[in-house]
Amino acid sequence: MQPLIEDDLEALTRQVLHMGGLVERAVDRSLAALLERDQPLAREVIDGDAEVDRLENEIEERCLDVLALRQPVARDLRYVAGVLKINSDLERMADLAVNIAERAEVLSEVPPLPFRPDVTRLAALVKRMVRDGLDSLQRLDAGLAFRTWQADAEADRLYRELIGQAIQFMREHPERLGDVMHLVGALRNLERLADHATNIAEDVIFVVQGRIVRHHMREFAPE
Amino acid sequence: MQPLIEDDLEALTRQVLHMGGLVERAVDRSLAALLERDQPLAREVIDGDAEVDRLENEIEERCLDVLALRQPVARDLRYVAGVLKINSDLERMADLAVNIAERAEVLSEVPPLPFRPDVTRLAALVKRMVRDGLDSLQRLDAGLAFRTWQADAEADRLYRELIGQAIQFMREHPERLGDVMHLVGALRNLERLADHATNIAEDVIFVVQGRIVRHHMREFAPE
Repeated sequence: MQPLIEDDLEALTRQVLHMGGLVERAVDRSLAALLERDQPLAREVIDGDAEVDRLENEIEERCLDVLALRQPVARDLRYVAGVLKINSDLERMADLAVNIAERAEVLSEVPPLPFRPDVTRLAALVKRMVRDGLDSLQRLDAGLAFRTWQADAEADRLYRELIGQAIQFMREHPERLGDVMHLVGALRNLERLADHATNIAEDVIFVVQGRIVRHHMREFAPE
Repeated sequence: MQPLIEDDLEALTRQVLHMGGLVERAVDRSLAALLERDQPLAREVIDGDAEVDRLENEIEERCLDVLALRQPVARDLRYVAGVLKINSDLERMADLAVNIAERAEVLSEVPPLPFRPDVTRLAALVKRMVRDGLDSLQRLDAGLAFRTWQADAEADRLYRELIGQAIQFMREHPERLGDVMHLVGALRNLERLADHATNIAEDVIFVVQGRIVRHHMREFAPE
């Protein structure tokens, strides 16, 4: 019996969600390493990146195989095209987690900086956005994708607030300038993680609704 | 007479190169605005972004149409999948140019900072990378794509050097801290532009050679 296109799409979904799980774990661990000043954990994130890179290539090959051999149309076609783009986003998110882990390694060797509660808040929000973005893909849930997209404004606000605090602290403690700049680097990567989660959400809405909503999100209301 | 798939691919190429031209222009102008402290020019970049957003949607729709109606295989399929990803990169590059233009607006209202020669050097390198990445797409030239990819190491080096200088300057001039942080933001966007040009180069090599070279670039030697 010939396998159906549904089987191929299901296999593709399993694989991209597996990759999503690895990326989510890398993000969570890099943030724990940053907040808990945990060098061995940071090292694990850095060492784990090769597996994500390998999976990215595998998923891209599989997307092209499905396109060539199954020639999907309509929603199935949008789904494969969406996975192709989400796959790129996920790989870049893993790289951002590695960058955060590298900053965490450096920062765990200097005295603690005083922004822990606000960094924790931003980290929790971004972690939720990453998880919701992946859940919206798994369930093809445009409503959840829309809420993920909405959360980005709050992530931007928290990020800008933290940068303002960091600048103020550097003014008062010029001797900690180098250390704060490492934290600023980590925060910037955190903010970019939120952007990628937003991109995934936009792609999910496109898959489900067949409408490109990015740049028009404000006019968009999910059923 | 029915149009050929070649005609469709040619139309797609024309459109993505048109978008590439707009993005290259936005990048060049944002950097000129930053270096020349030119507020009206910065404003033009910011206002021009809507057209890029529109084109991104149009190109994505066209890619899906070609996939659905033409069902390309082998190199044609890789080409359409590559354009789909390059399209996303281009749109994000336009956003980065907007961010640089916004920093340029702020920085043109404060006294000049002393890093002009090095910023000029980094800007020139990144502009070349963007142009070479697009040229390698137009000519499907894997060799040029590889050289674009190689240039990223130098962009990273120049960027890190500049950040070191910025930290040193902030130590000596804490009263200019806020201004320098705007420049640091612009530099980071510049470094990300180089990353996106590198992504485009990787996709071009994949289209031409049918091999996914990212994460394995060091083993790669073009014919």
